[in-house]
Amino acid sequence: MRIGFFGTGNVAGALAARWTDAGHDVVLGSRHPEERAAPGRTVTGLAEAAAHGEVLVNATPGDASLGVLTGIGPPALEGKVLIDIGIGFTEGMALTHPVTSLGEEIQAAFPATSVVKTLATMTASVMADPGALRSPGNVFLSGDDGAAKKTTGRLLNDLGWPDSAQLDLGGIATARGQEHYALLFLGIAGALGTHTFNIGVVTS
Amino acid sequence: MRIGFFGTGNVAGALAARWTDAGHDVVLGSRHPEERAAPGRTVTGLAEAAAHGEVLVNATPGDASLGVLTGIGPPALEGKVLIDIGIGFTEGMALTHPVTSLGEEIQAAFPATSVVKTLATMTASVMADPGALRSPGNVFLSGDDGAAKKTTGRLLNDLGWPDSAQLDLGGIATARGQEHYALLFLGIAGALGTHTFNIGVVTS
Repeated sequence: MRIGFFGTGNVAGALAARWTDAGHDVVLGSRHPEERAAPGRTVTGLAEAAAHGEVLVNATPGDASLGVLTGIGPPALEGKVLIDIGIGFTEGMALTHPVTSLGEEIQAAFPATSVVKTLATMTASVMADPGALRSPGNVFLSGDDGAAKKTTGRLLNDLGWPDSAQLDLGGIATARGQEHYALLFLGIAGALGTHTFNIGVVTS
Repeated sequence: MRIGFFGTGNVAGALAARWTDAGHDVVLGSRHPEERAAPGRTVTGLAEAAAHGEVLVNATPGDASLGVLTGIGPPALEGKVLIDIGIGFTEGMALTHPVTSLGEEIQAAFPATSVVKTLATMTASVMADPGALRSPGNVFLSGDDGAAKKTTGRLLNDLGWPDSAQLDLGGIATARGQEHYALLFLGIAGALGTHTFNIGVVTS
């Protein structure tokens, strides 16, 4: 599958490496591609990454994502799946979207694109290699388009997330839960002294 | 230990029953005690519950808690541990404190009281009987007073939460994480079709 990333940070780097290993054709898009090039990865401009991908991935900082995506423009994203991993924080580590979510706002701004929020509840190394934990825990999916969530689910499989670890929360409005969890994530990370963990649902 | 609840709903009822069984002397406080009386439980006014408890428990609806507590007044709560379980929701199921937390606001309004936020990340039956799940998962504690968190931890033991399941997130500011998680809790509950679950942290 052709995958185009927006962003070249830890998240994009970790996921791109795993998906490349799994046989996908991955391009990273940057506003400054010449500064982000590195051995073993293809870095292009944002518009080129959008044109390349059947599936696009928003791995830009959440407080900048809407600006970046709007700059690329809705036509370039039309009819595509956009996996959104971003979480927006203010300088004081509050959410930039405290009463909605970035995922919902991207979906509203790009109605002809199928936004799927996922992988937003863990650190990059766990996103890309859940098998390194004692057990993977859960990864959540939120999106209005069932087919887009199926495509995303197969890409999650390729990262090491079995179907049994994937929990479909429902429509894109449920992205709110994934994003708001970030504050508990930070509290747990502080208590444990590491970001390398996940949460798993336990039932009766 | 003498425990005074504010609130007579599901949360207060479930916890009061378990703590009574464990040998504690429990009173439930209500604005309308005559309407809330039931066999096997002691219901008083709010001021009487405050006077009774060495440890107090806020189990009122989170959107009403600050009003209820302010009505009782800071002197009645002075020098006591206040376990806060409340989460405030708007009618649209957004948080009433989207950029801070109820726990922090109670602590700020009652500086001579030791507020401990805990048990806010699960449904009443799981709070009171985590042993009914396949594994208990985690319960989180947030508070500025270490001794108050120790007292709370022993009361959690009495509900069936072993020390190993208790995760101290830090100061009361970390209550934000517990409260914001409510939105992910609702998403997971919707996906599972039940509120009877918890989350557990998995590490490497």
